[in-house]
Amino acid sequence: MDFENMWSERLKSLKGNAIREIFKLLQNPEIVSFAGGFPTLGLLPQKEIKEITDDLLTGEGALKILQYGGTEGYTPLLESGLKYASRFGVKGELKNTLVISGGQQGIDLMFKAFINPGDRVLVENPTYLACLHILKTYQGVAVGVDSDDDGLNIDDLEAKIKKHQPKILYIVSDFSNPTGKTLSLEKRKAIASLTAKYGVVVIEDNPYGEIRFSGEKLPAIKSFDTEGNVVYVTSFSKTIAPGLRCGIAVADEKIIRKMTIGKQAVDVHTSNLSQAIIDEYLRRGYLEPHLKEIVPVYKTKKDAMQNAIEKYMPLDKIKFTNPEGGLFIWGEFKDKSADLDKCFVDCVTKTKTAYVAGSSFFADEGINHCLRFNYSNATVEQIETGIKRLAAYFKENF
Amino acid sequence: MDFENMWSERLKSLKGNAIREIFKLLQNPEIVSFAGGFPTLGLLPQKEIKEITDDLLTGEGALKILQYGGTEGYTPLLESGLKYASRFGVKGELKNTLVISGGQQGIDLMFKAFINPGDRVLVENPTYLACLHILKTYQGVAVGVDSDDDGLNIDDLEAKIKKHQPKILYIVSDFSNPTGKTLSLEKRKAIASLTAKYGVVVIEDNPYGEIRFSGEKLPAIKSFDTEGNVVYVTSFSKTIAPGLRCGIAVADEKIIRKMTIGKQAVDVHTSNLSQAIIDEYLRRGYLEPHLKEIVPVYKTKKDAMQNAIEKYMPLDKIKFTNPEGGLFIWGEFKDKSADLDKCFVDCVTKTKTAYVAGSSFFADEGINHCLRFNYSNATVEQIETGIKRLAAYFKENF
Repeated sequence: MDFENMWSERLKSLKGNAIREIFKLLQNPEIVSFAGGFPTLGLLPQKEIKEITDDLLTGEGALKILQYGGTEGYTPLLESGLKYASRFGVKGELKNTLVISGGQQGIDLMFKAFINPGDRVLVENPTYLACLHILKTYQGVAVGVDSDDDGLNIDDLEAKIKKHQPKILYIVSDFSNPTGKTLSLEKRKAIASLTAKYGVVVIEDNPYGEIRFSGEKLPAIKSFDTEGNVVYVTSFSKTIAPGLRCGIAVADEKIIRKMTIGKQAVDVHTSNLSQAIIDEYLRRGYLEPHLKEIVPVYKTKKDAMQNAIEKYMPLDKIKFTNPEGGLFIWGEFKDKSADLDKCFVDCVTKTKTAYVAGSSFFADEGINHCLRFNYSNATVEQIETGIKRLAAYFKENF
Repeated sequence: MDFENMWSERLKSLKGNAIREIFKLLQNPEIVSFAGGFPTLGLLPQKEIKEITDDLLTGEGALKILQYGGTEGYTPLLESGLKYASRFGVKGELKNTLVISGGQQGIDLMFKAFINPGDRVLVENPTYLACLHILKTYQGVAVGVDSDDDGLNIDDLEAKIKKHQPKILYIVSDFSNPTGKTLSLEKRKAIASLTAKYGVVVIEDNPYGEIRFSGEKLPAIKSFDTEGNVVYVTSFSKTIAPGLRCGIAVADEKIIRKMTIGKQAVDVHTSNLSQAIIDEYLRRGYLEPHLKEIVPVYKTKKDAMQNAIEKYMPLDKIKFTNPEGGLFIWGEFKDKSADLDKCFVDCVTKTKTAYVAGSSFFADEGINHCLRFNYSNATVEQIETGIKRLAAYFKENF
């Protein structure tokens, strides 16, 4: 049977998430990959997770972990997840908290709860590409807001709110994906008050906040939320382990309720074993020493990339961000006709090094002169080699 | 902030899944619950899962389990999942297979791929309530098809296809939830050929097929699928452990591709640890002995319920099904004005015994004279006591 005339409007012409698709092309182990945003494999806390899982599956509580659970989440994790969120000044009670199957599910459930076809969502320009992908599955319309070095441009935010009457603003406040930029304290306060004034709901996504190399830790936008319009979404993927698919959302009780009704439909609940492992990891105090171990490694990798960029890249042609944390560096060619999508396959083939073309991160199509580098998934040596090769390619081709 | 004018059309007036909501009311340990469809807690294979998890988290593969995985699923589980599906005559290759976060996610991803607001989905009358709940989140319209003792009425199916031009037929072929009915072999063949003829996609959901007490195991509708229009969805929730949230879909490659694009958006991938545990459980040959252990226990419980029904229930007033397997018995009052929803709270309060009112299982509203009993989550003693109490209440009130 041919299904061509049967697909839903939402998925009919939707292509796969660009990053997920790239991975299939990068199976060749010779290729140095700056694509993706995987944590460093060797840093994943295997020993602690094994110890915890041993204990969890030995005890009397094991059967409850293997049984169905509540959609809202495993109660101990709701508690320890709130404590995790409080590291960024986020406050709430159990009724304000939902366990999600990875931070990304928080975005999906929020769009499910709010977005009708044609509804506008403001995003930073550029923004997390999965947010754009998810929004397309709800036939919502992403509108880009200009971005300064210290994050979202507040004047443009207000102008776009007035012009588009968006339901939602989506923002990564710490070390944004893809740019690595961090929203300043003043702007966090301004966003909280401006969105409250205009009745816009904010999804504040904070997967990278703990991976800070320099500068001062900043409280989340959610910590300045007086009207309940900010939804804080966080994840354990970058701080513990992404394979467990577990995150936390903290929001107004009414929003949590709608997200829960949506979650009942999509996966009933998050894997109890994943939830219990994350909970114990937090309760046993493993997070702090783990961060002390991994953050310097990420810093070393980031410094290696920054140094290689300064050493090899044609900086008269490309400008790069210099992030205070997170997993990504963003590059923009001054020549806007440079097409990083068009040359991608040629470049990967010749340089054996992969980046992600920036076009997928923009609300609007046709912005092809940018790229994203990830440094967490390559060794320091690979970073030096890969940047050198790419620099040579860029010098030759642009 | 008040969000009342902001909710999406799909969730604006959607209530929580009735069963999930009932659970919150049944926290009182005195209450005998025939609600829900949980596997028997004590039968969950804790020992084997602990052994497997120990091994998985010790070996070199552990880091890969903790890292991000592919959306399509953990390749070993795609293989062993196909073998699991082949127990019902389902054939396919890796490209026809998708790991899902519980069987229910298969329904969600299918509706995401096919259903526009207003699109029709045929369901057996009554049907799995989560299917109706999920369909509402896509603003699809469920149309009930009459059901005989041996499952879907084929004449009514054809009439409803002609009348409503549905995109999808959803059906549980073995021991349906809620009725416990099983679709006959002839009807399986008829459904495969009729839906192929009219271009209707079938979601064949088979979570209970392995829990058979009597009668002969039947091949799935999918095994008679010559046109690729049947999507087979199965789950490990009733055969291994629901808390791990893991299932398998087998379908035409084009459908798997659309489901995968949908899954990229909703949860990136299913927990790798859950996937690897299920895979090893199947590979180590634990399923067969486990089924030999659990099926007789379920049979004992089912027989206890059937005996208690015959002993105590006013059978002149209520007719019950007598399933060959699965987890449920279905009761219908002859008097269609009997209202099992209205008396629910009163009945639970007085009898300390809970059922699920049948209304939630129908595509149409206002069918209140039916109820569903689950027997897997109570002891034989509780079953006897609970049915006796309910019988007295029904005799007194109807």
